[in-house]
Formats: sequence, C-alpha cells, structure tokens
Amino acid sequence: MKVCVIGACGHVHQALSYLKIRKDVVLCGFAPGSARENRTASLDPAMPFYEDYRVMLEEIRPDLAVVSPIFGLTGKIIQECANRGIDVFAEKPVASSFEELEEVRQAVEKGGSRFCAMHYLRYTPAFYHAAKMVKDGKIGKVQMITAQKSYRFGTRPEWYGDRSLYGGTIPWVGIHAMDWIAHFSGKKFISVTARSLGESPEMAALCQFELEDNVIAAANIDYYRPATAPTHGDDRVRCVGTEGVIEVCGGKISLMCKDGVFEFCPDSAPELLEEFLDGGEAVTPQEIFHITKAAIAAREAADRQTEIQIGE
Amino acid sequence: MKVCVIGACGHVHQALSYLKIRKDVVLCGFAPGSARENRTASLDPAMPFYEDYRVMLEEIRPDLAVVSPIFGLTGKIIQECANRGIDVFAEKPVASSFEELEEVRQAVEKGGSRFCAMHYLRYTPAFYHAAKMVKDGKIGKVQMITAQKSYRFGTRPEWYGDRSLYGGTIPWVGIHAMDWIAHFSGKKFISVTARSLGESPEMAALCQFELEDNVIAAANIDYYRPATAPTHGDDRVRCVGTEGVIEVCGGKISLMCKDGVFEFCPDSAPELLEEFLDGGEAVTPQEIFHITKAAIAAREAADRQTEIQIGE
Repeated sequence: MKVCVIGACGHVHQALSYLKIRKDVVLCGFAPGSARENRTASLDPAMPFYEDYRVMLEEIRPDLAVVSPIFGLTGKIIQECANRGIDVFAEKPVASSFEELEEVRQAVEKGGSRFCAMHYLRYTPAFYHAAKMVKDGKIGKVQMITAQKSYRFGTRPEWYGDRSLYGGTIPWVGIHAMDWIAHFSGKKFISVTARSLGESPEMAALCQFELEDNVIAAANIDYYRPATAPTHGDDRVRCVGTEGVIEVCGGKISLMCKDGVFEFCPDSAPELLEEFLDGGEAVTPQEIFHITKAAIAAREAADRQTEIQIGE
Repeated sequence: MKVCVIGACGHVHQALSYLKIRKDVVLCGFAPGSARENRTASLDPAMPFYEDYRVMLEEIRPDLAVVSPIFGLTGKIIQECANRGIDVFAEKPVASSFEELEEVRQAVEKGGSRFCAMHYLRYTPAFYHAAKMVKDGKIGKVQMITAQKSYRFGTRPEWYGDRSLYGGTIPWVGIHAMDWIAHFSGKKFISVTARSLGESPEMAALCQFELEDNVIAAANIDYYRPATAPTHGDDRVRCVGTEGVIEVCGGKISLMCKDGVFEFCPDSAPELLEEFLDGGEAVTPQEIFHITKAAIAAREAADRQTEIQIGE
C-alpha cells in the first residue's frame, strides 16, 4: 500500500507511528500542505520530500493520502486527493465552512474514495469502553451529555491567529466533544447555540445542542489549563441516562447504575487507522460529515450569537 | 426576636436547626403555606400550630417569618409578610414568574422588610472558600463557569407534577447553579438559552448564559442520580480564569494556578441565616432578585426554546 503524507500539522505523528509498524505500507512521500507550513516539523527524513503535494500525488499515485496541513487547508486538499480516486485519512475538521463541507462530501462520493478522519479521541481507551457500556444499555436511555475539552495553550503556531487558516477553536478542539456526544448518544444533532470568548484563537467556548429523540448535550472548551497542570489536556464526558450516570475523567470510567457503583481504568482500545485500513468499525464518512457540520454550526452560532439548525 | 414559620417544605429544617440554637429567638408559631401541604412534616411539635398563616401573622406580629411552603406559593406568602412589615427569610426561588418577582421586589422595598432567601449552597464550605479564592484573584479574570446540580429523584411529593405548584426544575434545583455562577463571577446575567427534558418535574436541563464583561457560563441539572449513588447530590462548579482553573467536586476544592496545583477540603463556612440576622455579608436582596430572574428566564428559555434577555 503506497502512502503519501500531506502536511505536518495536527495529529500526523499519531497516524505515522501506526503506519510505520504496518508491513504492507510503504511511505512514499511527504509534501507540506502549503508554503506557510513549518517544514522542519520532525517527519521521517527517510521519506522523499516534494515541494508541491499535487506533483507528489501525480508522480506516486498513492493508494492512501494522510492529509494534515494547516487546518484551514484540509478540505481543499482532501478534494485534490478524492478527485484523483485516492483514499484519504484526514485531520479533523475535514472542512472549514458549510460550503466546503458539501464540496468535500461530493468529491469523496464522486471519487469513490474510502475516507476517514482523525476522530481519535473516541478511540482512547476510557472513552471507547465507556461508549460501549452506554451502547450495552448500562445507563438506560441516554438523556443528557456534557463534554469537556480543556488544554494548555502553550506555544502554538502564529497562524492560530488567522481564522481563515486556523478555522476556530470550536471546530479544532470542540469537535472532539461533539464526536463523543454523537458517539455516546448514537443520535444526530438538530440545533446549537454557542458562545465563544476572544478573537482567533478563541480561548474558551460553550456549546449547547439539541439532538434527535430528546437528547440534550453541552460542551465546554478552553485553552486556560495552566502550565502547572499535571497533564496537557483534561478531557471529560458525563452521560446521564434513565438508569444511571457514566463519566470519563482523568482516563478513568466511573459508572453508577442499578447494579452499583464501579470504576474502570481501561488501558487499550482499537486503533482507528487500523480499523479504517482493514475495514473494521471505524467512524464512517457519514458520521464524520455530520459531526463536522455540527462543529461548523456551533462556530457560526457563537460568531453570530444565534441558534443554528444543523440538519442532516 | 419572635419568629414564625410558614410552610414545612424545602429547606425549612436547615433554618430551624439554626434558629433553635439562638438564645434571642422565640419560635412563636407554625402554619402550613396551604391546605395541600403535608402538615405531618416533622416540625417542632412544641410550636403553636395555626391553620391559617395570615391569622398567625396578625396574632403574633413576628419580627421574622421563615417562608418555606409548596414552592409555587413562596412569592405570594413573602408579599403577605412584607406587606405587614415583617422581615423574611424565604425558600428559593422567591417567585415563580417575572410578574410575581416584580411584585415581591416591590412589596419588600415598600414594606421596608429585611429580606433574605435560602441560597444556602454558596455557604457550603467548599463552595464558600472556592468563591473566596476566585475573588482573591487566584485564577485571574473569570472567563467561563460550568456548574452541575445532580440529584437522586427518590420519593418526592405528588405536587412536583403540577408546574403551578412546583415551579419547574430549573428554578427549584438549577437556581443553585445560577447562584454559584453569579457569586463566583461577581457579574450580572445578560441572556440565556436552555433546554429541558420531560414534563413537570423536568428530569434534566441545560442552561447557557452570557454575563457582563465577557463571562460565559453553563449549568447542567438532572434528577437521574441512581439510588446506588454514594450521596444524594453531586454538586459541582468549575471556574476557568485567565490564570488558572478552580473546581469544587465531592466537597473538595481543586485549584490549578501559576503557583501550582492544590487541593483543599474546608470543613466550615459562615451560617447564611446568622449573617442575615446579625447584619453580615449575606446574599443581598438585589442579588436574590437578579438570580431569581435568571432562573425564571432560563425556565422560559427552555419552555419556549428561544433565547431570553435577562436585564437588571
């Protein structure tokens, strides 16, 4: 399987570390997503380097492209790959606007490409197994989900200050919370209201969702985790059902249900990219497009301070 | 100080247990707030019983009335007391509609009564001291607050099923979250969007607020804590500032700031009713009216599925 990598931003290293252990994969080339990208990012120096990813795609004709450029360019580059019939594993969000999302969807469907995005956080062990418990009915019917993404800001590229390149904190960080909400509930988003603080990058945001079948959900997002915090991120989800409550916090699952109170510390989960390449249960293109739409809608709801309908 | 008690609902016992240890207080009489109230509630049998609280007020002419009837009657009974120039310590929420809140405010101002309400939860040790740390600047400028109220439903009176008597889960339970938000931020509410699940009593709800000076806040509320849970309630607040994060959960304070990471388990705080009676820093009538307005606005936002402006 010939694999090319476009862009050295986001979670490209997580994809590469898996690809490197696969015997059937040949890493054939790397190109930055744009000239603005920091090319010194420590990608494998053994990979042939191309200035222009389009030249690379034409010369190598890879089976799969890993797309992880400056965030605002992801949607355009996915289309360049899909239009050539190349399978794509892309950084999320897979588009930066409703219009671009529709273009990406059409390109993927028309090109017949297999498609997946780096919705990695539903595959981290505690979240993966907590969602499974919810699907197994441990807390009854899901009623309300609250999710948290909190990060240290640390040092981030200058282009976080340019909304057209960064895309916004709700789509970049918040989309993981929306991914959990969609995954834990198994429901589609209907509408969202949101508020965010600060210009690009927005430093904090709140989103409140209505989903199908009377499920409600909220996400709180911030970059204010101080340098002294014991970890970079503080990912949480709390899912309230008619028969119990399950939570993920600090990598642990807490479950309260009619059988009692339990704590679990799972240490493994399937690898998203493996599931995708080997035809497992990876997050589907339909889910990815819907969650991306919810994330863009939430950003628009915050920008325009109004409720946004999400639709299909 | 002659004290009468009207109604045996809500947190009346918390007020009584403090009043009983005060040497300057004489508990002169008890009357139910209405005939629908369960009069067998274990109030002190030594207190003279009156069928009609108005007769009691006229006969005894107390200095203070503790008002804790079926929730939907609180506002009317406060007015009956204030109109007679009697000081009032009332269960929250102090009114059930915007119109009634205005009537209560006017009655209190016109009657010249001293007035306080059972916003007890800002006086529980962890919340009290965490708010103090925020006011002392430990986390910089407050940016975002998320608060949680989660209870076992257990067995509750039948009138919880009648909105006109119950008032709604957002004003009854959620008001504590709004009290924390107002207290921790020191800011006024501007607007709210909300969603709730179920008819009276609503079993879960989400509220999202905008406050003055670019503070945002959210509350999640539910009655789905299972019988197996180790405690009746799971009260939490998380307050994100420009220089750190402080949380209250399980009666503990967790503080992350530039000085490091700390945990505190405070075991004492001032008594709200003592502060009120002795002229301390108790929550002011202006605060109570504003927080009650936010709670009613949040219920309206959920009922009407639209954003509500809160105003003064």
